[in-house]
Amino acid sequence: MNGAEALLGSLAASGIEICFMNPGTTEIHLVEALDRVARLRGVGCLFEGVASGAADGYARMTGKPASTLFHLGPGLSNALANLHNACRARVAMVNIVGDHATFHRPFDPPLAADIEAIARPYSQWLKTSRIAGTVGLEGAEAVAAARAAPGRIATLIVPSDVAWGDGGTIAAAVPALVPAVPAPSRIEEAARLLRDGAQTAILLGSHTTQGRALVAAGRIAAATGARLLAPFAFAGMERGAGRPNVERVPYITDQALALLAEFRQLILVGAAEPVAFFGHPSRPSRLMAEGCRIIELATPEEDCAGALAALVDALDASRTAPQLQRAGLLHLPQGQITLEGIARAVAAVIPENGIVVDESITSGRGMMAATRGAAPHDYLVNTGGSIGIGVPLAVGAAIAAPDRPVLCLEGDGSFMYTLQALWTAARENLAITTVIFSNRTYQILKTELAALGTNPGPRAEAALDIAPPAIDIVPLSKSLGVPAVRVTNLEEFAAAMRRGLASRAPNLIEVPV
Amino acid sequence: MNGAEALLGSLAASGIEICFMNPGTTEIHLVEALDRVARLRGVGCLFEGVASGAADGYARMTGKPASTLFHLGPGLSNALANLHNACRARVAMVNIVGDHATFHRPFDPPLAADIEAIARPYSQWLKTSRIAGTVGLEGAEAVAAARAAPGRIATLIVPSDVAWGDGGTIAAAVPALVPAVPAPSRIEEAARLLRDGAQTAILLGSHTTQGRALVAAGRIAAATGARLLAPFAFAGMERGAGRPNVERVPYITDQALALLAEFRQLILVGAAEPVAFFGHPSRPSRLMAEGCRIIELATPEEDCAGALAALVDALDASRTAPQLQRAGLLHLPQGQITLEGIARAVAAVIPENGIVVDESITSGRGMMAATRGAAPHDYLVNTGGSIGIGVPLAVGAAIAAPDRPVLCLEGDGSFMYTLQALWTAARENLAITTVIFSNRTYQILKTELAALGTNPGPRAEAALDIAPPAIDIVPLSKSLGVPAVRVTNLEEFAAAMRRGLASRAPNLIEVPV
Repeated sequence: MNGAEALLGSLAASGIEICFMNPGTTEIHLVEALDRVARLRGVGCLFEGVASGAADGYARMTGKPASTLFHLGPGLSNALANLHNACRARVAMVNIVGDHATFHRPFDPPLAADIEAIARPYSQWLKTSRIAGTVGLEGAEAVAAARAAPGRIATLIVPSDVAWGDGGTIAAAVPALVPAVPAPSRIEEAARLLRDGAQTAILLGSHTTQGRALVAAGRIAAATGARLLAPFAFAGMERGAGRPNVERVPYITDQALALLAEFRQLILVGAAEPVAFFGHPSRPSRLMAEGCRIIELATPEEDCAGALAALVDALDASRTAPQLQRAGLLHLPQGQITLEGIARAVAAVIPENGIVVDESITSGRGMMAATRGAAPHDYLVNTGGSIGIGVPLAVGAAIAAPDRPVLCLEGDGSFMYTLQALWTAARENLAITTVIFSNRTYQILKTELAALGTNPGPRAEAALDIAPPAIDIVPLSKSLGVPAVRVTNLEEFAAAMRRGLASRAPNLIEVPV
Repeated sequence: MNGAEALLGSLAASGIEICFMNPGTTEIHLVEALDRVARLRGVGCLFEGVASGAADGYARMTGKPASTLFHLGPGLSNALANLHNACRARVAMVNIVGDHATFHRPFDPPLAADIEAIARPYSQWLKTSRIAGTVGLEGAEAVAAARAAPGRIATLIVPSDVAWGDGGTIAAAVPALVPAVPAPSRIEEAARLLRDGAQTAILLGSHTTQGRALVAAGRIAAATGARLLAPFAFAGMERGAGRPNVERVPYITDQALALLAEFRQLILVGAAEPVAFFGHPSRPSRLMAEGCRIIELATPEEDCAGALAALVDALDASRTAPQLQRAGLLHLPQGQITLEGIARAVAAVIPENGIVVDESITSGRGMMAATRGAAPHDYLVNTGGSIGIGVPLAVGAAIAAPDRPVLCLEGDGSFMYTLQALWTAARENLAITTVIFSNRTYQILKTELAALGTNPGPRAEAALDIAPPAIDIVPLSKSLGVPAVRVTNLEEFAAAMRRGLASRAPNLIEVPV
């Protein structure tokens, strides 16, 4: 058995089911081995940033890693921006990066690069394989490293002679580190804070806004009066009617300061203290009020769900019912397209058990509030601030959960970084309704420019426009295999989303804003 | 004056005229300063890989650097793949990368990253600015570093408080290092080799396939019988009727071995010994015949053009006329589209003083041979093997040489990595005729797969297809603002290219192959 088959077989034996891939010549033996490893399915991507974003979305929905396959240093480079987001989302991912044959690399051919140096900033585990005999085990180790809580990026570099070399063996799964529950003293400290009556917030990071962790947090909030918060850049949240309500810290610094001003105590659960998204000449970086007491219930690497369960016990709250969000009275809005109307229309059409991916930036400012009482759904956002993750994330989520309709809300500027993701959605016939908000500008930057108070000139203004030429979204989408419509009022918008979500196939809606 | 204006003013004072940009919030003061630095023009790009590829094309045509502007680590990450190509092309480029304010960075906000680590693999000069007072000088130093022979990538990281800080001053240009002519003993050694009668090749790297260096090489070849070669991955070449002929080392290893077998001596001029593009289980990495004597006339960092001039003198060849390529008898081919017909059609329509950018991969295999006797033109190719540089390179070349029509030959697979470049071509109304060869597969990989001799399975085959869905290139191009047509025979192809090149505006031709 060659190294390629041993590696893919070992990934499959460790539970890897998907490989988002954009291979080249140095990976050809890995491609060839796909037919001999039935449990590992390749999903083609036309650009590597689609693959890394999709692997992130897959991990967010399944809690387990997908693999990726990239072509040497440049292929990995194209994946980095969405690896940045994946690192911030603390998800599991296993990247396989091909390299030149070990005997060929010293000749410094054109595609040679220091792949380890390129991988290191966004890899928590990194190794270069040397012989076919061990590459299977290294694959299993990569999966185990990726699965260590809360989820890590593992990158294995595979020279082509390792892939084609003989003597490979399929390795059994390597157990992942089991995260520790924080020491009882930390649980007790948090319980004391929650009992003392001061206004307290619990900031939920590292996948605690879902599943049993979220229910436990809801019990704690109900029992103590604490408020549940999520960082602005959270990874994923179960929300809507019947779920505990978690407030997102706003992006706008002044709004975040206003929300957080009332809290005298903050309990961090796998999250860092909230800070402004960007530094500002006259606004603080730290967002909590002066003198707010901050304690860390659990680090991201600890068992955050276990810590919340222990805290429930310490508070004797295991029979306390969490306060659950009630279903909203969701009316379909009508008439002219407004940002408020868009948010209400989305809230009204989110299907039961749907998945919302939100990279709508300025066009979606009211989206979180409006959708609070929508049908229960998962909500995924851009966690690292590198725009261009929306449609790739939707692709990964749709592959992870093929029975759940995905609604992807995307700004036109962000969309254009990774528009190739539509092609993968079409190729895999994924149930994704992509909504493109077409304002033909990097509006978030226009706002920043205006806020400088310097009366910006025409060149600065033009530098932030993405027209002319106006990008014609509908034919663009169709050209990549995804049917598309443009809507001109809120009724059409809602109807198009309903049709799209019901179709169980990829489709796109352009919304001029 | 704030740091932003000081930096842009200093870049302009050092001769930088263009900034290919995709800014964000941390760069907003640099955007705002654009209106106060009239000599520096911003060119908007929807994706950073377009900007880095365009800066490469600009540098290849002008011999001087453009600047780029990127948004923190992720923005720079998206630029890396074409920075890889630019490093291999040994061109000058100045990257400006915004970062968080220095006081904000320690709080590790979502977009924070180790930008220096991300930049280092593809930056020969790298610095992070710390105060507004020195950022102007650092900009001038970056330009000087970039201009050091043969051309380098310089990256300056600019925290946002450096950009908005007061006390900036515009720095005068800093002189670039003047490259040294190699020692007379090295010139003499090469002259002795060339006089001794053994079959000798001269491999021309580092911008010696153009201008006075090419003419000198032509004199040397005519005087001595040596053959002029260029590496497969060359940066740019002046060729066609009236220019000395330079043969490109083929991509296919067996063809390269066949071409190079006859040479007993090889003189390197700013180039490395030719090696196979990829290592292979049963083929050599080194391409020269066993026992071939290899000497280095000049390193890339030395004055390669000066070395060739000195060699002309040493050979007493200054009055020897170079053997110049004669104009070919170029007939427009007719009928069905074939790869041979495509190459002949291109050769027939290349306009006098045109620029050809060739990333046609398998569809353009015969292109170099067919265009040898075409009208005089510049020919640019992918120098680092990271596909997705074609249209960005054309954008940069067209901005560098607005009076010269650009013909960009592009494979559909490569095109899809950086298709956003069409939008910049439309926005700037650039005289680029882009030809997309639509074979709907990564054909080069299909060939590799077939060569394994393992009877590839359906999953491997499918992994190398880029259909279904078939990408509909014509509406895709139109949606990005570039008029497009599809041709079905060679007459239509040639006519469409002629119309397109005459239009002096962006246009695209899809050629099914």
